[in-house]
Amino acid sequence: MTELAERLARVIRLADFEPLARAMMEQAAWDYIAGGAWDEITLADNDAAWRRRRFRPRVLVDVTHVDPSTTLLGGRCAIPVAIAPMAVHGLAHPDGEIETARGAAAAGIPFILSTTSSRSIEEVSAGAPGATRWFQLYVQDDPAVSRSLVERAEAAGYSAIVLTVDLPVLGYRDRDRRSDFVMPPLGNFTDTSPSHGRARGVDRADLGAAQRPQDRTLADRLSWTDLATIRRWSSLPLVLKGIMTAEDAHLATDHGVDAVIVSNHGARQLDRVSATVDVLAEVVAAVDGRAEVWVDGGVRRGLDIAIARALGAQGVLLGRPILWALAAGGAAGVERAIAILTDEFERALALLGAANPADITPAHLVSPVWIRS
Amino acid sequence: MTELAERLARVIRLADFEPLARAMMEQAAWDYIAGGAWDEITLADNDAAWRRRRFRPRVLVDVTHVDPSTTLLGGRCAIPVAIAPMAVHGLAHPDGEIETARGAAAAGIPFILSTTSSRSIEEVSAGAPGATRWFQLYVQDDPAVSRSLVERAEAAGYSAIVLTVDLPVLGYRDRDRRSDFVMPPLGNFTDTSPSHGRARGVDRADLGAAQRPQDRTLADRLSWTDLATIRRWSSLPLVLKGIMTAEDAHLATDHGVDAVIVSNHGARQLDRVSATVDVLAEVVAAVDGRAEVWVDGGVRRGLDIAIARALGAQGVLLGRPILWALAAGGAAGVERAIAILTDEFERALALLGAANPADITPAHLVSPVWIRS
Amino acid sequence: MTELAERLARVIRLADFEPLARAMMEQAAWDYIAGGAWDEITLADNDAAWRRRRFRPRVLVDVTHVDPSTTLLGGRCAIPVAIAPMAVHGLAHPDGEIETARGAAAAGIPFILSTTSSRSIEEVSAGAPGATRWFQLYVQDDPAVSRSLVERAEAAGYSAIVLTVDLPVLGYRDRDRRSDFVMPPLGNFTDTSPSHGRARGVDRADLGAAQRPQDRTLADRLSWTDLATIRRWSSLPLVLKGIMTAEDAHLATDHGVDAVIVSNHGARQLDRVSATVDVLAEVVAAVDGRAEVWVDGGVRRGLDIAIARALGAQGVLLGRPILWALAAGGAAGVERAIAILTDEFERALALLGAANPADITPAHLVSPVWIRS
Amino acid sequence: MTELAERLARVIRLADFEPLARAMMEQAAWDYIAGGAWDEITLADNDAAWRRRRFRPRVLVDVTHVDPSTTLLGGRCAIPVAIAPMAVHGLAHPDGEIETARGAAAAGIPFILSTTSSRSIEEVSAGAPGATRWFQLYVQDDPAVSRSLVERAEAAGYSAIVLTVDLPVLGYRDRDRRSDFVMPPLGNFTDTSPSHGRARGVDRADLGAAQRPQDRTLADRLSWTDLATIRRWSSLPLVLKGIMTAEDAHLATDHGVDAVIVSNHGARQLDRVSATVDVLAEVVAAVDGRAEVWVDGGVRRGLDIAIARALGAQGVLLGRPILWALAAGGAAGVERAIAILTDEFERALALLGAANPADITPAHLVSPVWIRS
Repeated sequence: MTELAERLARVIRLADFEPLARAMMEQAAWDYIAGGAWDEITLADNDAAWRRRRFRPRVLVDVTHVDPSTTLLGGRCAIPVAIAPMAVHGLAHPDGEIETARGAAAAGIPFILSTTSSRSIEEVSAGAPGATRWFQLYVQDDPAVSRSLVERAEAAGYSAIVLTVDLPVLGYRDRDRRSDFVMPPLGNFTDTSPSHGRARGVDRADLGAAQRPQDRTLADRLSWTDLATIRRWSSLPLVLKGIMTAEDAHLATDHGVDAVIVSNHGARQLDRVSATVDVLAEVVAAVDGRAEVWVDGGVRRGLDIAIARALGAQGVLLGRPILWALAAGGAAGVERAIAILTDEFERALALLGAANPADITPAHLVSPVWIRS
Repeated sequence: MTELAERLARVIRLADFEPLARAMMEQAAWDYIAGGAWDEITLADNDAAWRRRRFRPRVLVDVTHVDPSTTLLGGRCAIPVAIAPMAVHGLAHPDGEIETARGAAAAGIPFILSTTSSRSIEEVSAGAPGATRWFQLYVQDDPAVSRSLVERAEAAGYSAIVLTVDLPVLGYRDRDRRSDFVMPPLGNFTDTSPSHGRARGVDRADLGAAQRPQDRTLADRLSWTDLATIRRWSSLPLVLKGIMTAEDAHLATDHGVDAVIVSNHGARQLDRVSATVDVLAEVVAAVDGRAEVWVDGGVRRGLDIAIARALGAQGVLLGRPILWALAAGGAAGVERAIAILTDEFERALALLGAANPADITPAHLVSPVWIRS
Repeated sequence: MTELAERLARVIRLADFEPLARAMMEQAAWDYIAGGAWDEITLADNDAAWRRRRFRPRVLVDVTHVDPSTTLLGGRCAIPVAIAPMAVHGLAHPDGEIETARGAAAAGIPFILSTTSSRSIEEVSAGAPGATRWFQLYVQDDPAVSRSLVERAEAAGYSAIVLTVDLPVLGYRDRDRRSDFVMPPLGNFTDTSPSHGRARGVDRADLGAAQRPQDRTLADRLSWTDLATIRRWSSLPLVLKGIMTAEDAHLATDHGVDAVIVSNHGARQLDRVSATVDVLAEVVAAVDGRAEVWVDGGVRRGLDIAIARALGAQGVLLGRPILWALAAGGAAGVERAIAILTDEFERALALLGAANPADITPAHLVSPVWIRS
Repeated sequence: MTELAERLARVIRLADFEPLARAMMEQAAWDYIAGGAWDEITLADNDAAWRRRRFRPRVLVDVTHVDPSTTLLGGRCAIPVAIAPMAVHGLAHPDGEIETARGAAAAGIPFILSTTSSRSIEEVSAGAPGATRWFQLYVQDDPAVSRSLVERAEAAGYSAIVLTVDLPVLGYRDRDRRSDFVMPPLGNFTDTSPSHGRARGVDRADLGAAQRPQDRTLADRLSWTDLATIRRWSSLPLVLKGIMTAEDAHLATDHGVDAVIVSNHGARQLDRVSATVDVLAEVVAAVDGRAEVWVDGGVRRGLDIAIARALGAQGVLLGRPILWALAAGGAAGVERAIAILTDEFERALALLGAANPADITPAHLVSPVWIRS
């Protein structure tokens, strides 16, 4: 067994990847990935909220044939998990998103490429042709740049557009303000500067002069009426990432999106927002089957997937643990991470008395009233 | 006083046995016994939930004659406690289950032998003839093997079959994956391999190859329709162990079982399951007197027995503390453990204003609503 | 200023007495005083529950003349506080209860002498003639002994009988079982052995032999029908100490007692009983003005007195802090303790917008529902 | 960049000022500023309660133009924040309140001068002429002195009177009793002694003699009927500081005050009072738009301002962090503190989908029922 294989074999749960990754990364880069906004209250709560839920396991159900696979946007996935869009995987691995996408392909789950990736849309497509790839869009100052990104993604075989809607300005991130972290080069931008990356630079400079940084991302003027325009740029399904209320879930489905992602941006934008799992039921009820609902934030164990399904989510996105696994083992690390989640999720299914994700129902969770009784 | 007697005399509460046992056991064996599934959230909650309950003691009741005894399945017990089925007592004591059963007999409570015991059905019967012995069944790949186990138990004077229903696959146990623990030989199997023990071996091997371990136990196809078959194998009462919902409690009583055990398998199977005491009232209401209800998980003090009775349980099973006591003092340790519980339970009865277990009512506990007020 | 006066002047809150006393006492004696039953869950909760309550202060009320005094059993007290009956003050001070009673007299609050005191009924009467003294009765094996105690108390000028009803057997006290603490001589018994003291000795002996100790106190046969008998032994008001439920509060008032004390015996009898303040409202509602209601357990600051009054108690009893103060400074220590409480209580009155205890109403406390909102 | 500018540039959040200030102050002065009453339960809860609230962020709202300004008492402020009245800023900076007022003026928010300031009404007016200044009144023994203070404030250009109503006596402050802190000279009193300052001196002396200190402030006879008199002393708006109940909010608006401040005096008066944010909704509902409602206590981040607005407050007062910033950097420190709060509040607005404070509604917060679900 190689050294890498040995290291990965000792990883028993996703959390085991964290110290491995930390040991391999610069402190500022680590803080950029690990950190959340303000006091990181929601960062902690995203994790804790999954652990507060309680299952109601059913017994004496025939679970000889457990099948953990499902579909996301109509495409089959090995488990109800996709890799969340995250900036600059180059911080974790020299080959960046190419390596992550290869791991996702090997594990049979979709990979979402961020606008602010280290590797370009086309590089990832060429490097991981077998992966189900979706493209996450940060709208740019110049609509023509945004449109170009979408068109490039469609041309390169990405099969969905995930529009992030919770970044009109950057959240207040204490860690990044303290560190000297500088955003590394972005793969999708050569002659133009990305709005998102530029904003952070402004931020640092402003702080020194005690001026008021706004970290504008030009997404600050994005509104519901822009969705029709963005949709016209391609034939791809449109997913909104960052929905946290019933009101916005209603608006999203009224605007015909294909899926909404219950997300607080990994607790990196507004702090003291609810943990995502705590608002999932509210969003699911508002969407009422008119679109898929996914959830991200704090997913660490296969049990979380079962909880998400019981609350009505079609699937979950996995974020930071993928970067840990990428740093620790490249594509093999990512694949190992999904293998662990799969093992855990399959056991959870069987122990709940469910042969597949669709068998999990709300009655498999203690309702909040029951928790308190 | 012998050294053993001195050591046992210094044991004031069951928790005192834990460090004594830990000092005498291999780390991997200790972890196998002590550990729970996944993050051990339910493992901690099983204990904590008993401590969250609050009594409503009644005064000026004549408790000159306190009698802590009761019946379980119609047989009289010194206190409403039986020893839970647990695998391989040989990890704790060279004579294994024989010694445990002797302690149970001396204390006047029933002993439940596990399918995966160190000593065989017949050895325990011969070594502790005076004990009330019940047999716990893990169904095996081959129904003939399962049947043979039941028939051997009946022939050897075991007076009930306790069918475990919450192990279609093994839970995800981080500790066992990290340790090099190897399951020791099982007393009931000579020419055939037990399904349960084999599964763990597969598990270890699979992990190294990053394949998907399933830890199948062949109980994965067990379903409600099999109960009639199992019942036909003997004339003994049938008890289901691992019921955690009203739905399954209804099904169990509809299938005519004699008792159900509210259990989450000592938090070793699914994590983030409710603490057993937190679902006891739900199961008791569903059973509605048609069968006995017992509960296990986290019982550590005589007060827990009183709480279980107030919530409608006929009795409790005692698990890990018995293995601690067995390691610390053999049969004498087990007897000491029950003596302490008895002392505690008798005092609890008198201090609640109850002369015997049947005098304890739901009004002896603060209702959850009252807890919050 | 003397060394004692200097030491007492540095005591700012009752908790400051605790380390002073601890430094002056044997470990076993300290544990006997400090300890509670079983896991000491209620011991901690008795304190914490007072701290969970929240005031609703009223402003712009004329509080030029704040008068913290009230009556208990018709007699005026400087503040709504009496000194709780506690065994063997000799552990804290050579002059024992004489010194405590002198402090109480100087502070203008009643002193309750325990049956199991270090100094006799008559010694305390002679040594602290100015104190309002009440006598706490543990019923004894021989009714004649009980009757004699009551008659001696009345003859010696004690003005109420406080009958303890929550000690049919001793609670399970881990600390006392571990220590070699031996009960010191009791002042009220010369030729006869007290039932309460004897029981503990039996307890120690029994444990060594792994026999079942019962710690019978012969109060185990005491019941409601005995109250009429006890009342006939004197003309004094009768107070029941140890009422924790509405049911027993109804019975107590139906039997015509003059006051009931909401008490869990300082958490020394049954563990996992509610904190006293958490059941106070229930008992007050049941008594419905037919008797006075007092409360003890965990009182540490003048704010606790205000909370007790807001919940309908006429007054509180102060326990362990008095023994700390007694150890630290004798009668002067006790007087200092009450002076601090008085200062705190007066400020609480003024800051609540109340000129005296009777001005405090339930609306001065946040109701539990409001706490959660 | 100067050393001061460098130090301030490293301040990322208000809490960063705290260790800087602590390093520059005497322990007794620090304790006087930092401390709360009794056990400081409310002191901790004032902070924690803001952190328990959860936002409901709205997305896809055009927030190109975020304007964080609002009005307080009809005057425009850069953000909905004023500087709370606090005693003796001279403890933190040699120029005391002059420096604080300069920082407030530079930041565009109102400054409230305490009666017990280090610098006089007139000195602050002359030293910071551009600041919006309000005057906080502690009523004095002699009504003529109180009247003179109000008249001096009006003459010196102060534009509101903030009457503190929660100090009929001083709270019981353990820290001040332990320290040797002596109140420094007060700027507004030359030939007369202030009632408030004198009281503390009496307090220290009394304690040594174990006498009962009352810390009377002569505000102890202040009542609702005095408000009309105080109002006649000037033409300025009248604000009541220290309202914590619906009952007093009703009375305040019935008496025609212009604003009420939900305040527990920074947890320095009565302990175990609710955190201010926890009673804000109750007071807002009672005031019902007839006056402005402000809130203070524990404000540390711009998120707190957004929470206060969502609960119906017009603005917040900022206390201890201003003294930290003053100690760390004088007027520039104060200005830096407000700049940070402004940055945070602007981001919070944009991330909530609100272009200005008036856009924040109750629906931007999870209701308490939702928190528990």
